[in-house]
Amino acid sequence: MPVMMKAAVFVAPGRIELADKPIPDVGPNDALVRITTTTICGTDVHILKGEYPVAPGLTVGHEPVGVIEKLGSAVQGYREGQRVIAGAICPNFNSYAAQDGVPSQDGSYLVASGRCACHGYKATAGWRFGNIIDGTQAEYVLVPDAQANLAPIPDGLTDEQVLMCPDIMSTGFKGAENANIRIGDTVVVFAQGPIGLCATAGARLLGATTVIGVDSNDHRLDIAKKLGADVTLNFTRCDVVDEVMKLTGGRGADAAIEALGQQATFENALRVLKPGGTLSSLGVYSSDLKIPLGAFAAGLGDHRIVTALCPGGKERMRRLMNVVAANRLDLGLMVTHHYRLDDIVAAYDLFSHQRDGVLKVAVKP
Amino acid sequence: MPVMMKAAVFVAPGRIELADKPIPDVGPNDALVRITTTTICGTDVHILKGEYPVAPGLTVGHEPVGVIEKLGSAVQGYREGQRVIAGAICPNFNSYAAQDGVPSQDGSYLVASGRCACHGYKATAGWRFGNIIDGTQAEYVLVPDAQANLAPIPDGLTDEQVLMCPDIMSTGFKGAENANIRIGDTVVVFAQGPIGLCATAGARLLGATTVIGVDSNDHRLDIAKKLGADVTLNFTRCDVVDEVMKLTGGRGADAAIEALGQQATFENALRVLKPGGTLSSLGVYSSDLKIPLGAFAAGLGDHRIVTALCPGGKERMRRLMNVVAANRLDLGLMVTHHYRLDDIVAAYDLFSHQRDGVLKVAVKP
Amino acid sequence: MPVMMKAAVFVAPGRIELADKPIPDVGPNDALVRITTTTICGTDVHILKGEYPVAPGLTVGHEPVGVIEKLGSAVQGYREGQRVIAGAICPNFNSYAAQDGVPSQDGSYLVASGRCACHGYKATAGWRFGNIIDGTQAEYVLVPDAQANLAPIPDGLTDEQVLMCPDIMSTGFKGAENANIRIGDTVVVFAQGPIGLCATAGARLLGATTVIGVDSNDHRLDIAKKLGADVTLNFTRCDVVDEVMKLTGGRGADAAIEALGQQATFENALRVLKPGGTLSSLGVYSSDLKIPLGAFAAGLGDHRIVTALCPGGKERMRRLMNVVAANRLDLGLMVTHHYRLDDIVAAYDLFSHQRDGVLKVAVKP
Amino acid sequence: MPVMMKAAVFVAPGRIELADKPIPDVGPNDALVRITTTTICGTDVHILKGEYPVAPGLTVGHEPVGVIEKLGSAVQGYREGQRVIAGAICPNFNSYAAQDGVPSQDGSYLVASGRCACHGYKATAGWRFGNIIDGTQAEYVLVPDAQANLAPIPDGLTDEQVLMCPDIMSTGFKGAENANIRIGDTVVVFAQGPIGLCATAGARLLGATTVIGVDSNDHRLDIAKKLGADVTLNFTRCDVVDEVMKLTGGRGADAAIEALGQQATFENALRVLKPGGTLSSLGVYSSDLKIPLGAFAAGLGDHRIVTALCPGGKERMRRLMNVVAANRLDLGLMVTHHYRLDDIVAAYDLFSHQRDGVLKVAVKP
Repeated sequence: MPVMMKAAVFVAPGRIELADKPIPDVGPNDALVRITTTTICGTDVHILKGEYPVAPGLTVGHEPVGVIEKLGSAVQGYREGQRVIAGAICPNFNSYAAQDGVPSQDGSYLVASGRCACHGYKATAGWRFGNIIDGTQAEYVLVPDAQANLAPIPDGLTDEQVLMCPDIMSTGFKGAENANIRIGDTVVVFAQGPIGLCATAGARLLGATTVIGVDSNDHRLDIAKKLGADVTLNFTRCDVVDEVMKLTGGRGADAAIEALGQQATFENALRVLKPGGTLSSLGVYSSDLKIPLGAFAAGLGDHRIVTALCPGGKERMRRLMNVVAANRLDLGLMVTHHYRLDDIVAAYDLFSHQRDGVLKVAVKP
Repeated sequence: MPVMMKAAVFVAPGRIELADKPIPDVGPNDALVRITTTTICGTDVHILKGEYPVAPGLTVGHEPVGVIEKLGSAVQGYREGQRVIAGAICPNFNSYAAQDGVPSQDGSYLVASGRCACHGYKATAGWRFGNIIDGTQAEYVLVPDAQANLAPIPDGLTDEQVLMCPDIMSTGFKGAENANIRIGDTVVVFAQGPIGLCATAGARLLGATTVIGVDSNDHRLDIAKKLGADVTLNFTRCDVVDEVMKLTGGRGADAAIEALGQQATFENALRVLKPGGTLSSLGVYSSDLKIPLGAFAAGLGDHRIVTALCPGGKERMRRLMNVVAANRLDLGLMVTHHYRLDDIVAAYDLFSHQRDGVLKVAVKP
Repeated sequence: MPVMMKAAVFVAPGRIELADKPIPDVGPNDALVRITTTTICGTDVHILKGEYPVAPGLTVGHEPVGVIEKLGSAVQGYREGQRVIAGAICPNFNSYAAQDGVPSQDGSYLVASGRCACHGYKATAGWRFGNIIDGTQAEYVLVPDAQANLAPIPDGLTDEQVLMCPDIMSTGFKGAENANIRIGDTVVVFAQGPIGLCATAGARLLGATTVIGVDSNDHRLDIAKKLGADVTLNFTRCDVVDEVMKLTGGRGADAAIEALGQQATFENALRVLKPGGTLSSLGVYSSDLKIPLGAFAAGLGDHRIVTALCPGGKERMRRLMNVVAANRLDLGLMVTHHYRLDDIVAAYDLFSHQRDGVLKVAVKP
Repeated sequence: MPVMMKAAVFVAPGRIELADKPIPDVGPNDALVRITTTTICGTDVHILKGEYPVAPGLTVGHEPVGVIEKLGSAVQGYREGQRVIAGAICPNFNSYAAQDGVPSQDGSYLVASGRCACHGYKATAGWRFGNIIDGTQAEYVLVPDAQANLAPIPDGLTDEQVLMCPDIMSTGFKGAENANIRIGDTVVVFAQGPIGLCATAGARLLGATTVIGVDSNDHRLDIAKKLGADVTLNFTRCDVVDEVMKLTGGRGADAAIEALGQQATFENALRVLKPGGTLSSLGVYSSDLKIPLGAFAAGLGDHRIVTALCPGGKERMRRLMNVVAANRLDLGLMVTHHYRLDDIVAAYDLFSHQRDGVLKVAVKP
């Protein structure tokens, strides 16, 4: 086995570049996975632009599809050579946070490693790949807490078919799950990027009967229809709140899912709701949010606002791959472009400028 | 039976006065209740000040304790002379909203009465007494949907013991119920007015083991201790967020209950939370709210923000009176002053200026 | 308007016959509905055989599709001539039971009418049509608590398309809802009669990805595939428990739905479950049930067994008709035979002997 | 450090004896704990009698209070010398079962160790101490998955105060948690042994306002009153079902908790329920159970039957110790007798014959 590998590392704002790094050692609870396919996420673009700080030299990327190269001594029930994925968030399920119901929010390793003096949970601290430890845009990645996080790929599924499971699908579906959907619900999904499209698909899979996709891009609205939207609204050509009220006979939507991370979508998600409705928020916001008094019924509307970080773990991945294997959903159509790892700088260039109708790229070492 | 009665009516901003009004007729689904005790709520003070609009001439008040004087022809299972209460919110349980799980939010009668062209739910529309129909600060009140809303008082309980059930206790407890409390939780309650005190008591009754009451008034903090707080914090003398972090070993509170309706308390309620925690909001806000980006973890903290309007209905009232009858809680100690209905102008004066350590007043025709 | 109507009444065990009865008077909270289509349920066959006691002379049937003929004086928001359905169970939503979360279980009117000395809930007492009051196999039916129970049919839907909503679909879907389904679940549905087929469809609509239909009738298993089953098992040709274990890699099913009401299906529903799984029971049993010690893990398996009575009310009906209107499901294919009300004796004969591949019959006055 | 220790081992039916065994080696994810106090459970008596099979030579006992002697190389955030407890069930939180919500039910290590060919969950397989691996009635115990299972004891709490947390309190409270208690509920707890007493206490802590304890032993009923029962019923002197119906005005109990494991208590727990009520079962049954048709409303009563295995993990232990530290409950009064480990045969003799009013014994090496 070689000792060095190629990896895409953050160098400085504006620069993610290919570098040679040593292949990491495998501790008792780790697994080394040889990447066969990975992808670029919107978060990676924030890192590239310097909007989200990571340590210079860190390998970026958090969506692994690959093959087990080497297992830690304490990891049982897997075999080397097995095809696996792992979640974008690889939680430590031994943590207080995980046992308390929020595996993605554990920050105990930050304490252990001396990076943080906190004793408790730390928001988003469950996200490690390409954030705190080396990520997946490389020839190899070290999966921590491997016993909890390695998820075997069912026979017959291609890399592309499961490439959305680690992050986009897990996040989008969580948005639908948090929306508390019951059979017969009307659900409005604001923004139809990759995560919004998965939220749209998830809302339909959970029993909503009027799924409304909102975006300004007609091409994305077309894909929304293919993935589960009953109705699509282009907000540049209509008043979304008015339309939802018409579609629901004045009742309002049972739930709204925000999948962009902006004030306008957050606010409209609240405005379309019935009293008693749920705003499920997925977006990563970049400034304080305003809750308009009227849309919030002055605090008396029996509303729920729920946020989420992408769930991980092998059981979550197993369930998501079940959805794919059962042909409930074809997320392969989201992979619009293919690149070799050697060309990742070009891939970032295309993806960060959203050129050529790109939704997601597949990157292969 | 007489045909006229005394009632406290809203005349104009700054003026609530006693007037003579006809005792109302009783429709098939109504009940006429002779008031024996009622009280004044913070909302009534907003009405008095003209901050919340109601029709001039409307009888105010929404917390009835009394005796059934006359039952509508279709109301079964009660008898005239029976002691009863009814919720501040008297829902129409036949409505779509009620069958959908939010009885307090039905506005269907607004459509029926021609007051509103909406076809769906309408936030807060379930509140009728002293808002849309004549209220309880009178010798008699007409209870709508009486079959659903009349709740017999268990033998042995005084008017004062059940006077908080229709609104303060139902609202405060709902705040605790929405906080999703599990055994061993830490719950912080911001503001220890009547509703906050009930939220404090409710949090303890539901199994929280570190209930933290926050206020600037030491007298109210003393009462909080009597009603269930393990710890009290006077925010004029400490940094509440720091203290909560210390008390929880850096972990953060499992839930926070906002019981004031202001930006500062809303914001701090978010800041004390663990990732994955719940902000249960009870306050009536008077302006747009700001959600600070950091406290909200940029939308990635698995947070929940939940609002509520006071739940009503005879089953709710039955359960709350059970709490009183079982000696779990003595809310009688909240009744600090007594007035006759004839002196209600003086009662408003005392209560609206929060003089003399007043928490709640009992008003008796 | 005529004063007499034709109605199918229970005469004695073995005899349900057409009779002339007066069209009922309409009280303030009632509505008189002219039936355009109704159907026969398995429960009606139990009544016919004398296995379930009803008063001689009672009109049978509990699945109404029709037109509002006359509204009670207190019923608002509907118009005469409007096409409506009502649930098989028409709950009194003003009752303690309904406000407590189980509208189908209220028996308060039994007390009011002197039929029962109980003061509390009474199991199954929410079922009135064709059980305690005159039912729907007639030219007209009186709908009690009409404000809560009349559900307008969306434009464009035929009688046949909504005929399953009042009972079969509401019950079958409740079975799926009680199964606590999460995305990626394996759900086994025991028996593929009309209710089991709806449970199969409901399980798929709620996100199960391996829906397994079990029956001995290959024709019904074919319909199961059309309505949502991923896999079907004919229990006369395989060991169902073994097959489920194979299909789940030894893990067991996440949930099982019992839709027959017999010991064998109840027991196997328990045997296929994973520890922590849910048995959602829909069947009407006719004798004591046995829980096998091993399948129950001696009481230590974190199992849930949940039963249900068909949910009713206008909001429930609205949601189910939404499912139909959104083309999620075509239950029209369950209506295999058509009869006129005049020929209802022949319809009972066919249906009770399950001749000619009958699933459900449509009966039209 | 010594290499040998004393341990109580199962020899043959009727014989649990003290033996010398090597102190075990510590793997990377283990911790060696020096026992300071442990206790004997009813399950241990079943083992003693040969009614529950364990391997001859196995150290019995599953309730550890002690001090960390040595930590595995991969275990972080603890220090040697720290006082800790661990749950009777020490789950592998990396397992599919744990990530799926039932940590107590994972059997993956059985596969890994070759003891079981199953691939999935296995009921009760989460219980390891004194069942599959050496237990706690010894000078030292090896805690598996230590990172997930070691729970530091808060300062100021004695061994006796936390001795019930690992099993009795965790199980009893789970019974109350599964009962789905809401404020104002009536809850009946059948049997007031140690687990039933904890269920009684838990029901009160969660907001039930009429907690009814049932037993035949007046002394235990007295303790039930001290720990939270509002009413106690000695079933040898009254008809429990009749009494509960009287106490609830004919409505039935909202929930019943079975804490004995026998047909009679299971059956009565069902009989006292309202339609829509929950039977939370904790008992370990030794034969098939019968569900009476009438009490089950023929399957139409909207009933829930829920079972549980004791929850474990450090977060669970942390929460239970919080209850003790907050003075909500004094379980020290359950410890009626003290023994040295050297005298454990005598302790078994007393406990298995339930002599001298014994509830629980403390055993100290």
